[in-house]
Formats: sequence, structure tokens, C-alpha cells
Amino acid sequence: MGDQYARSREDARPPETPAIRWDEPPEGPVVVLLDQTRLPAEEAELVCTDAPALVQAIRTLAVRGAPLLGIAGAYGVALAAARGFDVDDAANALADARPTAVNLSRGVRKAHAAYRASAEAGGDAEQAAAAALAAARELHAQDAEASARMARHGLALLDELLPGGNHRILTHCNTGALVSGGEGTAFAVALAAHREGRLRRLWVDETRPLLQGARLTAYEAARKGMAYTLLTDNAAGSLFAAGEVDAVLIGADRIAADGSVANKVGSYPLAVLARYHHVPFIVVAPVTTVDLDTPDGASIEVEQRPGHEVTEVTAPQMAGAGTEAGGGTPVAPLGTQAYNPAFDVTPPELVTAIVTEEGAVSPVTAEALGELCARSRQVTIS
Amino acid sequence: MGDQYARSREDARPPETPAIRWDEPPEGPVVVLLDQTRLPAEEAELVCTDAPALVQAIRTLAVRGAPLLGIAGAYGVALAAARGFDVDDAANALADARPTAVNLSRGVRKAHAAYRASAEAGGDAEQAAAAALAAARELHAQDAEASARMARHGLALLDELLPGGNHRILTHCNTGALVSGGEGTAFAVALAAHREGRLRRLWVDETRPLLQGARLTAYEAARKGMAYTLLTDNAAGSLFAAGEVDAVLIGADRIAADGSVANKVGSYPLAVLARYHHVPFIVVAPVTTVDLDTPDGASIEVEQRPGHEVTEVTAPQMAGAGTEAGGGTPVAPLGTQAYNPAFDVTPPELVTAIVTEEGAVSPVTAEALGELCARSRQVTIS
Repeated sequence: MGDQYARSREDARPPETPAIRWDEPPEGPVVVLLDQTRLPAEEAELVCTDAPALVQAIRTLAVRGAPLLGIAGAYGVALAAARGFDVDDAANALADARPTAVNLSRGVRKAHAAYRASAEAGGDAEQAAAAALAAARELHAQDAEASARMARHGLALLDELLPGGNHRILTHCNTGALVSGGEGTAFAVALAAHREGRLRRLWVDETRPLLQGARLTAYEAARKGMAYTLLTDNAAGSLFAAGEVDAVLIGADRIAADGSVANKVGSYPLAVLARYHHVPFIVVAPVTTVDLDTPDGASIEVEQRPGHEVTEVTAPQMAGAGTEAGGGTPVAPLGTQAYNPAFDVTPPELVTAIVTEEGAVSPVTAEALGELCARSRQVTIS
Repeated sequence: MGDQYARSREDARPPETPAIRWDEPPEGPVVVLLDQTRLPAEEAELVCTDAPALVQAIRTLAVRGAPLLGIAGAYGVALAAARGFDVDDAANALADARPTAVNLSRGVRKAHAAYRASAEAGGDAEQAAAAALAAARELHAQDAEASARMARHGLALLDELLPGGNHRILTHCNTGALVSGGEGTAFAVALAAHREGRLRRLWVDETRPLLQGARLTAYEAARKGMAYTLLTDNAAGSLFAAGEVDAVLIGADRIAADGSVANKVGSYPLAVLARYHHVPFIVVAPVTTVDLDTPDGASIEVEQRPGHEVTEVTAPQMAGAGTEAGGGTPVAPLGTQAYNPAFDVTPPELVTAIVTEEGAVSPVTAEALGELCARSRQVTIS
């Protein structure tokens, strides 16, 4: 019953605006983005007719989230090819739009390589463009498939750890369809539980300073008809103390070889609270997040973000655009110095499990993670 | 050297606007408040010429903080008496301005009792008014004296726990001169360390949702020339992990007989982090905060605040005025439900010490707290 009720609520809503889509109206092909800087105030689509427009959208964070950026980069190359622009120029501009985003340049390279391979094999411009688009679509589909598999593995783990269902899950930051070609990472697991009628409550940390939880995760949960409640990050302690949290589910920015997890700042305090209250702390991320070249947590360099993200508040239309100086309303005295790390590092001993599209690792050890990565590479090669 | 440097920086600043003062310009007596709703954007004084104006200031949170509200209530009674208004009416209106503030009604009663005692002893209106004012001034002075003693005891404890000075102290919410007739509770201890040249850094939690740390504690720290850094509440975990916190100092809203501490939401997660990292967690509060009629933490009723404090952001001029519905800019989807407890409860086993004006209790036990309260009552009676 819970299952049917949940599905009917979701189906009764207007069709969702996807985070990214390729479209071919009579005027020519376009990449259409859901403008994330306008959420949750409005669902506005941003239509990009050339690569420079897409570069601008990436720079202003209209499109964001590591896997989604890779897909956007690949579609951008396909767009330049389909419209007859210089594909090498477009690929360079797209790959440089956000220099630290590894997935972005990876996606660009994938579509670009497909384009060149077709051209070198004697294909004409149209065939090469079709090859680039096919590569972009494949990346998009692979990412959606990885989401679905993470959700399946994550839900199985939840059911094993917490028999009986009726999960009350606490999450942090945004890990749903807005960062992915599919339904995301940690959020996708909660969504799978919801679809099975086994999600009692999704507790959504607002995630200061940029409020990705309040702005984006709450938006996604509302769209899906999930039972969710927003809270300030520091109110999570009261929930744990009251026994209201059955599991914590978060994503990851990077996972070191020893299983240390770098994720949005605020994840580590949740891990300590979860340990203190004997609550499972589960990390959900694709295998590509595991970086075997980073040996441990101490080797992960933590990015310090501008202080004005903390000393000023911004309207939703502006939040997230925190790389430009200021522009918000000051909430602290002028000249106030802020400590604003982008993420924190949770050591493996506080992580109950790491869930990937290739399965879950629990307990989290360097050996188990290494085996998972080796298995994943075999699958990719075969 | 550190001492002299610290003092000279403080002295070089313009004189501070006190949170509350009694003044007698030619037009007649007034109560002058520092309007806390305008901080830190501007230091504006609010001049109250009668009790209704003061009631309004209390309701809009222009004046706030338990001890300071008591002083304001007492001055309000004295003001009504000095201006020849109905003192009983004024006392009732003031005591009801914020029904849950125990200190407010206590302060009102004190000045009112002094007024009536003088009148009943045959004093004329002027003498009765003078008696009310004397009672208000006495309460103000007692509170300042209690702050000074808490600061002394707190600093002695810090020096005992952390020999060598150079303290890096993390604090939460606002516990300084803006809530007190003196220099506050936890903040007063940090300030004392600063004056002695032994404060290396004050880490200031912004304290969502109403941002009392960013707005008020940062303001007070800046005024005092202290080395302070603001952070989002969820970034405290990274500081602990990096070994950057030597002690946590917080205030208390209520302390149960068993030593459980109710304080601003976000205190409990800090206590768990402090325990995990073997860092002292110290509560600083006057003896009146200990409520022997509340047996334990479970008996403390936690106030749930309106959800819009979390789902909307407000400019500093409006922040804190969170009891009226909405008025801010939404950051979450419309209709989002929020979990917004005003405070949380830290069990005594996580509290290293409770520091009062009568001395410190460590370890925190029901017996030790009971003895402290008995000693305090003897001092008051004698």
C-alpha cells in the first residue's frame, strides 16, 4: 500500500524538468539545462545553442555536480560538431570552464575522441557529429545506470542493517538527480526506499554555507513526494539523541585508498554523532570517486572557500555563485575573517559502508576497496 | 606584552554602547537600549520614555538575553514610577512581554517590591520611585559582579586544564555583554583570557538559524579587539579533527539537578565532538540557571521554534525577529516542513565542568551541583 501510494503521488505531479537534455527543434540542436541557480524559486530552462553558452552556464553554476558536468561537457562537444563550429576550440573551452572538475574534462575527452575517430576513419562532418552525440548519450546512460545500481545495492544494505524497513534517513548536501545523469548517489538510495514504501522520513540537513540541502535536496524530495523535513545542520544532534535517525546516507567528493571520505563540510560531525549513537554511516558514490593515488585522509587537500559565503547571506537566485566576491547581505561585522573549508574528511573507522555501482564495501578497508576497484576495471575492460 | 597589546587595542576603540543604561536628561528619565536587531550593521540606541516602549523593545528582541531582560524589566518599573505612570500596570505589562522569560518577571518583581515597600513604609512617590531605581541598579550591579566572578573562576579552570595559556576556544551562540549586565558568561571567560594575553583564537560558531554568533558574538569580539574567526556550525568538526580547539565554552539556558545542560541548539553536537577529541567542554552560567525542580535532561521541555526561521533567510535587521511569520526570502521549496528546536540537552557525562559565580563544579554530579546551590543560597541569605 505504501508502495502504491508513493507511486501515485509521484505520478500525479507534472512531468519533471530534467537537469540536462539534448533537443533537436527545427532551428537546430540544443542542450537544455535546468537552471540550478534559480532553484527552488523557479524551474527555468536554459537553452544553449553553442558551446560558449554552455561554458557560461558551467561557470555560473547553472549546471553543477561532478557526474552531470561530465555529461554536459560531452553534449557540448556534440553540440559544436552538430552546428558546424570548431570542435577542437569548443572542447578546449569546455574542459577549462571549471579547471578542477575532473569529470568535466573526462566527458569532453570522451565525446571529442569519438568525433575524431569517426573523422579519421573517413566519416564526413555529419557522421563525426553523430559519433560525438552517441558518445555523450552513452555517458549519460552509463551514469543513469550506475545510479540505479548504487540505489539497488544501497537499499539491499539498508534492509540488511535495518530489517523491517520504515527507515528514517539523514542526508547532507545534494546528491540527487541534479548532480547526475540518473537519480544520484545517496539520494537515489533514499528514493529507492521511498518507492518501495520503506522510507519513513528523509531528514535533510540545510548544508551551510551554500544551502544545497535546503535549496536542492528539499526541492528533489518535494518533487518525488517523499516525506522529508529540513533542519539546520546543528539540529542533527537532537535527532540522534531522540533516536530519530536510523541511518546516515551521504555522497563523496573523493575517497582515498584507505577509505577516508572527503565530502561536503559537515559530514564528519555526522559521522562522529552516528558512531556515538550506534547509527550506520553509509557513503554512496561511483567507483570513479575512489582515488587510489591518494593514500589516506591526510593526503587529501581541503579547499578553502571564500569567507563571504559565511559572512554574507544571499538570496536563492544567488546562492552557490559564491566564487565571485560578495554581493550578499552582510550578517557579520565588516572585516570578519571566516574559516570556510569546502569539505571535511571522515576516517574509514567511522564509515559503516561504502556503496558503489559494483557493490558495497563493509567494513571499509584498503584491501576491500582495492579489490572493488580491480573488479570494476575488469568489468570496464571486458 | 600580549597583555599590554591587547589592552591598548581595546582602549584605542571608541567607547562602547552599553546594552542597557538609565539616563536622566532634562526632559526626564529614560531607559536607553542598544537596538540588537540592528547589529552588526549599525549601533543604534533606542530611547524608551515609558514602559510600553520598553515592552515593545522586549517583544521585537531589540533587547534580549535572560539576565539582561531581568535588568530591563526592573528599570522599566523604575521608569514608570519616576514618570508618574501606574506602576502596577507597567509591572504587569513588562512581566508579560515575553511569558517564558523567568528572569524578566523576576527583575520586574524585585523593583516592584522595592517600590511598594517604600510606599507602604510611608515614602512619597519620589521616594518610592527612587527605591525602585535603586533595586534595578542593584540587580544590574549584581549581574555585572556575577559576570566578573564567572570570568575569574572560568579562567582559573582553563589555566588548570590547559597549562601554558594560548587558548584556542570554540564558542556557540551569544553569551557576552549583550545578554548581561556585565560581560556575560562563556564570552566573559574568553574575554578574560584575551585581557591576560592568553587567548590565541576565539572560534565563533555562526549559530543557525538566527545567527547570534555571526551577528552578535563576532560583533562583541571585534569590539574587544579579540582574535576571532567565524565558521559555519558544521565546520567545527574540521577544527576538532585538525587539533585547533583547546576548549569549548558555552552558556546555558537551564541546568537540571543532575547536571544536564539545555543550551542553544548545536551545543550537544559540540559536546560529542569534544568528547571524541578529548577536548574540555565547559559550561558557564550563573547559579540561578540551575533548576533543582527539573530532575534530569529528559524532564526539560524543548521549545520548537517556527519553521520559517530555517526555510527563509532574513537580513540582519530582521534576523532574530523570528517569532513573526515569515518575512524573509525563501531558501527552501514552499511548503517545506522544518525541524527547528530552540535548544538541545547535553548530558552531564559530556560536560567537563560547570562554572558559576560561586565556583566550578567538576566532575558534574547531582551532589556537587546541590552543594553549590545550597552554598549560594547561604551567601544570598547572609
